[in-house]
Amino acid sequence: MIDSRLLAWAYLSKVVEGPNAHLQKLLKEGHDVERIAFGIKHREEWIGEGLLKNTDSRYSIDTAQTDLETIAKLGGRLITPEDDEWPMEELDHAFGFAASGMSDHVRTYQDDALPPHALWIRGGNLRTLSAQSVTLVGTRAISQYGTEVTREFTQNLVSHQWTIISGGALGVDSVAHSEAVRAQGSTIAIAACGLDRSYPSHNRDLFNQIAKSGKGALVSEYPPGTPPQRHRFLTRNRLVAALSQGTVVVEAAWRSGALNTLSWCAGLGRIAMAVPGPVNTAGSLGCHERIRNGSAQMVTSADDVRSLLGAVGAMDSQTQYELNFAATPVQGLTRNELRVFDALDDRGEGREAASIATEAGLTLQLTIFLLIALNKRGIVKRDGTAWSRNAEMP
Amino acid sequence: MIDSRLLAWAYLSKVVEGPNAHLQKLLKEGHDVERIAFGIKHREEWIGEGLLKNTDSRYSIDTAQTDLETIAKLGGRLITPEDDEWPMEELDHAFGFAASGMSDHVRTYQDDALPPHALWIRGGNLRTLSAQSVTLVGTRAISQYGTEVTREFTQNLVSHQWTIISGGALGVDSVAHSEAVRAQGSTIAIAACGLDRSYPSHNRDLFNQIAKSGKGALVSEYPPGTPPQRHRFLTRNRLVAALSQGTVVVEAAWRSGALNTLSWCAGLGRIAMAVPGPVNTAGSLGCHERIRNGSAQMVTSADDVRSLLGAVGAMDSQTQYELNFAATPVQGLTRNELRVFDALDDRGEGREAASIATEAGLTLQLTIFLLIALNKRGIVKRDGTAWSRNAEMP
Repeated sequence: MIDSRLLAWAYLSKVVEGPNAHLQKLLKEGHDVERIAFGIKHREEWIGEGLLKNTDSRYSIDTAQTDLETIAKLGGRLITPEDDEWPMEELDHAFGFAASGMSDHVRTYQDDALPPHALWIRGGNLRTLSAQSVTLVGTRAISQYGTEVTREFTQNLVSHQWTIISGGALGVDSVAHSEAVRAQGSTIAIAACGLDRSYPSHNRDLFNQIAKSGKGALVSEYPPGTPPQRHRFLTRNRLVAALSQGTVVVEAAWRSGALNTLSWCAGLGRIAMAVPGPVNTAGSLGCHERIRNGSAQMVTSADDVRSLLGAVGAMDSQTQYELNFAATPVQGLTRNELRVFDALDDRGEGREAASIATEAGLTLQLTIFLLIALNKRGIVKRDGTAWSRNAEMP
Repeated sequence: MIDSRLLAWAYLSKVVEGPNAHLQKLLKEGHDVERIAFGIKHREEWIGEGLLKNTDSRYSIDTAQTDLETIAKLGGRLITPEDDEWPMEELDHAFGFAASGMSDHVRTYQDDALPPHALWIRGGNLRTLSAQSVTLVGTRAISQYGTEVTREFTQNLVSHQWTIISGGALGVDSVAHSEAVRAQGSTIAIAACGLDRSYPSHNRDLFNQIAKSGKGALVSEYPPGTPPQRHRFLTRNRLVAALSQGTVVVEAAWRSGALNTLSWCAGLGRIAMAVPGPVNTAGSLGCHERIRNGSAQMVTSADDVRSLLGAVGAMDSQTQYELNFAATPVQGLTRNELRVFDALDDRGEGREAASIATEAGLTLQLTIFLLIALNKRGIVKRDGTAWSRNAEMP
């Protein structure tokens, strides 16, 4: 039997198409999710005029039970802010920044500048997968050049334990996802429809591979049965940008949807990047325009991307400088290094990498990658398979 | 018989390899050129220890007569700061800026950060040719992409009456020069050897075409007989950058000589520009690096170049804005528009374009181009073939 609380979340996911400011407000005020669901279903006045109006056409059709059964049959689940797996850090960072109202794009699309209330998932742990991730997007009309660059960037990034996030579309998105799978890396595809559907249908096999690889995930804000519709792509794009630490547009002409994702990226306080290309074809026009007007950083390699995102192993001179002159080595740690360091026993007891990974909320591979980097810098000790803080830290 | 004054300049050009700070100082102090030449030849003390030392190995060999005969046989001439044709505005702008000492590059190469004392020329009027000019340079190892881009940029620029300046090398330089000739535009090749030589010899025909086209020029700081040597290329590069209003590196990998020219461009207060290209070949690495570190503006079309250089017909919104809101229309004129406007009779008498061009020191074609633009904006009137200021200016 399905938990009544989860049923309430599934009901809300269906009848309140996300995101929704009224629902976010009720949740923030501490109202219980089951009470909110009941209130909407029974048209209770305290729910507020706005949310009652938003749910007017859907409130009476409760498909929560069926939707949860459908996602379970697909090997998936529904996750909510109450779950450990909820990508809290990424969403807080992104929509916290958006709330500061600093971006024209966010002001224009303010109804969408809110976190999802729940997410449907097939595949691995979303929070650990997104903790070190980068979004690669671009044109559907991908060129040979775009294909080569997308592959090169993806190979380099996954070999450094970065998860590749994209929108599952044809072209750049598909090449990024499939190259990540081929290189046995992690990838997340964020859909604009229910996960019982494959859109575009051409990518059905790819999506199944991602879901079943054990190293990736398919994610949607929409319950099973939701068709892909134009407005959902635009709303979905904010999540494609929000869940990673930065977005790279690999190839995009004018008016490419990828540029919409890039605008979200900047509006959500993430690092917006674009790859230049030949100037005598239309393929990179959109990238060049964003670089020229300063709304995207130019990146010519995956090393550039990692350097801008401040990852270990690709530190720029500024980061290196800050590290060298930090008052203590710990003050010089990057965000994810700090998560690993904090997860180590503070009395010097050794701990297994798997247990550190769980504690830190990072993938096992990334955790080991970071432990080795910290070890090289004398901050972490290794004894067999046990890792601990180095008491005689430099 | 050759003028004794010109013989003195030719002597100095030969025995004082340019540029030379000591000689510049004497000239600036108002010493007569014939007296200086005599002083050097006869080792007079007032010339100063520095310049006597610089001329120690060459002062006794006076080839001035022969050198002037050689250049005359080639249909060329020697020009000096005493000639109307001396590109005074460009050299003053560039080396005046350099003297401000704002650039690391200029500090490093300060011995070269001085104007030439004389220039050997085959072809058209250097001052009018360089008045609206842009430098296109790049790798000798040009790719198909580089070839296409160089051609496109050149075609567009010459069709808008821009002179193309370059260094006559194989690769980007040659494509720029020859495309300018093919499109019946103006082009200037600046050599690192005497004009009686063709370096690279492969370009002999191209150089002759430029010299004889009536719309271009070959220029060198070095008298006939001077061989091309490594240090001369680096010294020459400053002139390639100094004579135009901006330099575009079309294609350049690491350590390309074209990047040296780009550094000069910035150090001389000119607009430094670079064209991006594919990131998965080495061809555009140097361009990307300069764009990334902010030392060159990214340009993806010749329109971008003209817009950055503030030319009419390609005004960016900022320029358009300044023009629209200038207190008077004349205050909104660009540098060359002002030269044309100032050359018009201020009592409203009509004047022929050829006479305006001479007065303004611009090519006839550029002058007509600018007159038409000013006419469209109501600043200039046309009556048959006579042009005048519009008394009822908007």
